[in-house]
Amino acid sequence: MRYSFSDRISSLQPSAIREILKVTQLPGVISFSAGNPAPETFPKDELAEISSEIFKNEFAAALQYGISEGFGPLRELMKSRLSGKYGIGREYDDLIIVSGGQQGMDLACKVLLNEGDTLICENPSFIGSLNAFRSYSLNLVGVPVDADGMDMDALESALSAHPETKLIYTIPAFQNPTGAYMSLERRHKILELAQKFDVIILEDSPYFELQYSGEMLPTLKSLDTEGRVIYVGSFSKIVSPGIRVGLACAHRDIISKMTVAKQVSDVHSNLFFQMAIARFFERYDVDAHIAKCRDIYRKKRDAMTDAIGRHFGGLADFTPPSGGLFLWCDLPAGYDAAEFCSLCSRRKVVGVPGSAFLVDEREISGGFRLNFSLPSFGQIEEGITIMGECLKEFIGAGR
Amino acid sequence: MRYSFSDRISSLQPSAIREILKVTQLPGVISFSAGNPAPETFPKDELAEISSEIFKNEFAAALQYGISEGFGPLRELMKSRLSGKYGIGREYDDLIIVSGGQQGMDLACKVLLNEGDTLICENPSFIGSLNAFRSYSLNLVGVPVDADGMDMDALESALSAHPETKLIYTIPAFQNPTGAYMSLERRHKILELAQKFDVIILEDSPYFELQYSGEMLPTLKSLDTEGRVIYVGSFSKIVSPGIRVGLACAHRDIISKMTVAKQVSDVHSNLFFQMAIARFFERYDVDAHIAKCRDIYRKKRDAMTDAIGRHFGGLADFTPPSGGLFLWCDLPAGYDAAEFCSLCSRRKVVGVPGSAFLVDEREISGGFRLNFSLPSFGQIEEGITIMGECLKEFIGAGR
Repeated sequence: MRYSFSDRISSLQPSAIREILKVTQLPGVISFSAGNPAPETFPKDELAEISSEIFKNEFAAALQYGISEGFGPLRELMKSRLSGKYGIGREYDDLIIVSGGQQGMDLACKVLLNEGDTLICENPSFIGSLNAFRSYSLNLVGVPVDADGMDMDALESALSAHPETKLIYTIPAFQNPTGAYMSLERRHKILELAQKFDVIILEDSPYFELQYSGEMLPTLKSLDTEGRVIYVGSFSKIVSPGIRVGLACAHRDIISKMTVAKQVSDVHSNLFFQMAIARFFERYDVDAHIAKCRDIYRKKRDAMTDAIGRHFGGLADFTPPSGGLFLWCDLPAGYDAAEFCSLCSRRKVVGVPGSAFLVDEREISGGFRLNFSLPSFGQIEEGITIMGECLKEFIGAGR
Repeated sequence: MRYSFSDRISSLQPSAIREILKVTQLPGVISFSAGNPAPETFPKDELAEISSEIFKNEFAAALQYGISEGFGPLRELMKSRLSGKYGIGREYDDLIIVSGGQQGMDLACKVLLNEGDTLICENPSFIGSLNAFRSYSLNLVGVPVDADGMDMDALESALSAHPETKLIYTIPAFQNPTGAYMSLERRHKILELAQKFDVIILEDSPYFELQYSGEMLPTLKSLDTEGRVIYVGSFSKIVSPGIRVGLACAHRDIISKMTVAKQVSDVHSNLFFQMAIARFFERYDVDAHIAKCRDIYRKKRDAMTDAIGRHFGGLADFTPPSGGLFLWCDLPAGYDAAEFCSLCSRRKVVGVPGSAFLVDEREISGGFRLNFSLPSFGQIEEGITIMGECLKEFIGAGR
């Protein structure tokens, strides 16, 4: 029989980059296309010990239904850690445990936006969030981003052109895909603009603790004194992504609605691992663990930066990111990164062309994203060497 | 500041029964209000052993990102079990792992229905599903249900009155909240009507293996030869609800869209426990485990049925359910079960008034739902004794 699907899901087309990414499944392929953390950062011995104890002493609670807000002790621990250490969360705020940061974006849209509402985001931005927004049939307006984050003049123009805007979505720290770190000046400016145009800010912050150089800046949430920022955090990059646990911190009125929305989405997040994370934060030196993750990723970033310096022959522009998992390269003006990435994937090295991250995927982008957290040092060296050869061939052919 | 929320979430009002259910948190309260399985049915020793092995041998995969369709070996195991044992799934079907049955309903709506579309369901029905439907701003049309399931004459009238109907939602096996088991005749009839009116059926089947008496009937999915039924199953009642793992089996075109929708909702379900369930089904005699669950629940059902026979003095009508977790009682005509349940909760015994399960919660219901899976035998005896006293007081006062 023939099925008729909803408008919202019909608008989510399989992306053109899927063909490029399919190659990553083949043997011998070096993939810089993932967003995966390195398995060596997973605190597996700690989680193994904690899990065995939970099965022994708390199985009846851990395997039973929980409440949609999340496991109480984990919520309290995270409220206290985020507010004590980073100034995230004020007396009017509350915190909900979600099934990974992705669900934070989904629930925020679900409770705040109607179909056709306008949302402004960085362009390029994280595919998962863009697709979540598309699934709510929103009017997406993209604003350019440079090494200092979202362009504030462009944001102000976009807000003036779309005064009906409900939400600004931003990844201020080590933006996916560009790696940009929003400057302090712009952090103040975005809050000022959000206030002026009475818009909510959705701050996606999965990487902010993975900073490898430079000064750590306050989050938007910690600068916000009005309850205008919804902060979404994740345990995916400091504990494990496979367990699907994240959090959202916002004014209690918003969290209360997100709780209702979560109840009808998946009732609650995996309770066993909510308990395991709580025990992990209670018993272990999590800051030391995060410092260890940072050391691993800093070395990988340096390895990729160094290899690019040696093999790209100055044919692509890039700024070494000061944190996160991604490095962004720009081809010279006029070149299409989708074509370049196709060429590389035929040589079994996979990067993601920038068009995949655009609000309008049909636009051409001269940028491409490379992930340095998952590949080994050997793969980084070999993959960048091959990419460098492709680059010379590609740019040479085009001129 | 003041927030403006989406229409869809504004329509989800906190239910009036919350006040009654709040009592369940207090010490000394006997709750028949939950939908929780008994912790003694959790296969905790098996899961503990399997988990410890996963941490030892497969942690890098189990803690890493997975694919939205779900863990491959679990999908294959469930396809083969469901089709081999129950005739669920044909060559054109596919199967996706979801974050509990609740997400199955959510994703089915997300991919099939636009705002304002009509959905027909049993009335009363499962609150979680009703609220999921409300969150998509659907037009809900309720059809009465008796001990043999949804009333087919009423369904035909509803379909004739609403020929634009897109979906029929039903829980054929041990319906929540009524415990009804849809007769074979009606199973054939609902498929016939769905074909006649070209409507998709969403079959919610969390309890079908928990049958305590009578003959096991084929699921709607196994009777469907057209790809008209979306089957949603759950591991919540035979393994654990806290781990949030379920499945949906439907035509591959539908599963493919649900996969896209799941990707933007929570990327994938907890991978660690998807692997753990797969190992559990591979290594252990799951049918023997389910038989053990059935034995536990049959005894509890019998204990509650017996206690009601001794303590209710024939003042409330009920049919002992042949499976599932719930028993439904009807007060004599003209009595409001919400008032009765309030009286009981003041005596620290909690049942759920039928109005909570109605498409229009403002309607009065003379029925109430009692859960027998979670309370102990002692709690069942004591709670039903008190309820019987309340019943005599309540009915006596009203006449």
